[in-house]
Amino acid sequence: MKYSKKERQLLLQQTITDNPFITDEQLASKFHVSVQTIRLDRMELSIPELRERIKDVAANNFESEVKSLPIDEVVGDIIDIELDERALSIFDVGEEHVFQRNRIARGHHLFAQANSLAVAVIDDDLALTAHSDIYFLKPVKAGQRVISKAVVTSNDKERKRTFVTVTSTVDGNTVFTGEFEMYRTKGSEHK
Amino acid sequence: MKYSKKERQLLLQQTITDNPFITDEQLASKFHVSVQTIRLDRMELSIPELRERIKDVAANNFESEVKSLPIDEVVGDIIDIELDERALSIFDVGEEHVFQRNRIARGHHLFAQANSLAVAVIDDDLALTAHSDIYFLKPVKAGQRVISKAVVTSNDKERKRTFVTVTSTVDGNTVFTGEFEMYRTKGSEHK
Repeated sequence: MKYSKKERQLLLQQTITDNPFITDEQLASKFHVSVQTIRLDRMELSIPELRERIKDVAANNFESEVKSLPIDEVVGDIIDIELDERALSIFDVGEEHVFQRNRIARGHHLFAQANSLAVAVIDDDLALTAHSDIYFLKPVKAGQRVISKAVVTSNDKERKRTFVTVTSTVDGNTVFTGEFEMYRTKGSEHK
Repeated sequence: MKYSKKERQLLLQQTITDNPFITDEQLASKFHVSVQTIRLDRMELSIPELRERIKDVAANNFESEVKSLPIDEVVGDIIDIELDERALSIFDVGEEHVFQRNRIARGHHLFAQANSLAVAVIDDDLALTAHSDIYFLKPVKAGQRVISKAVVTSNDKERKRTFVTVTSTVDGNTVFTGEFEMYRTKGSEHK
């Protein structure tokens, strides 16, 4: 369906409010217009580009929520979090994160994003990784954006352990998965 | 047994030649003298302190040996390596590697040391981590020195995989262990 410019801009505003992390490419495809048209729409509507929207969300909302570590110790930008349930972060792979020789991201940076998200999701003053089982499924290159999703899967109150599954994707393809067994000082209230 | 100063200095020189990584404390205990005496002995014999000895060994000997990555991309200092067999590295935990709140070393730094050693030990132009199963056994604090030992345990020529076990210790206590499944471009010549 083709919309008038006015209709499209109205729907565009609504779409971005609902999902601030939608890309210009996805919006263009949704509204059957060019990416350039979307950019012009955004400018007219004073909607910042995706990267700026992410930074705003990351900086504003989660500072006070994360308990287990100061937010500047999280590797990547947290863009959504519900303590002891789930968390989401974005990490832009730069030249400093890759092997010089083949420009493939070094494993410990992908691990750092996932591991610090597994720490951040814990609703406790102290959370430490006890065990982790991780798979590097596809090489990630400089310039790519990695989205990590952490989901709390279970709690062992007696042993004060929380189990977290982290899945990292680039453009919808899974590049890394990890199971994290987290030690915490207090048991979880949940589950 | 108590030695004369001359005997002790002779044996001291020999001991350090045999094991450049022995500490002043270990030497003091071995020769039943104070650490201060060992320091004076070393000064008289112009033997640099342990840290300097390690840096010398690390910088001089392994640049040309490691094939899978440039040596400056290894996290920690490699102090011994035999490709496709074993490798040893030292990593000094600094303030930049710990959580501000409790000064416990962050997991991804211990992982980085172990993982880059598992890459370095591979006798191949390309080695990538496919899977890793890791345990954080004891908290490591700022100021501590972590010694990682990587041992190649088996090869799967058909799948071009090499399996490496890494054990990291602080003062002889195991703080981290990891099993690494490494992908390589060529199969190993060994085993």
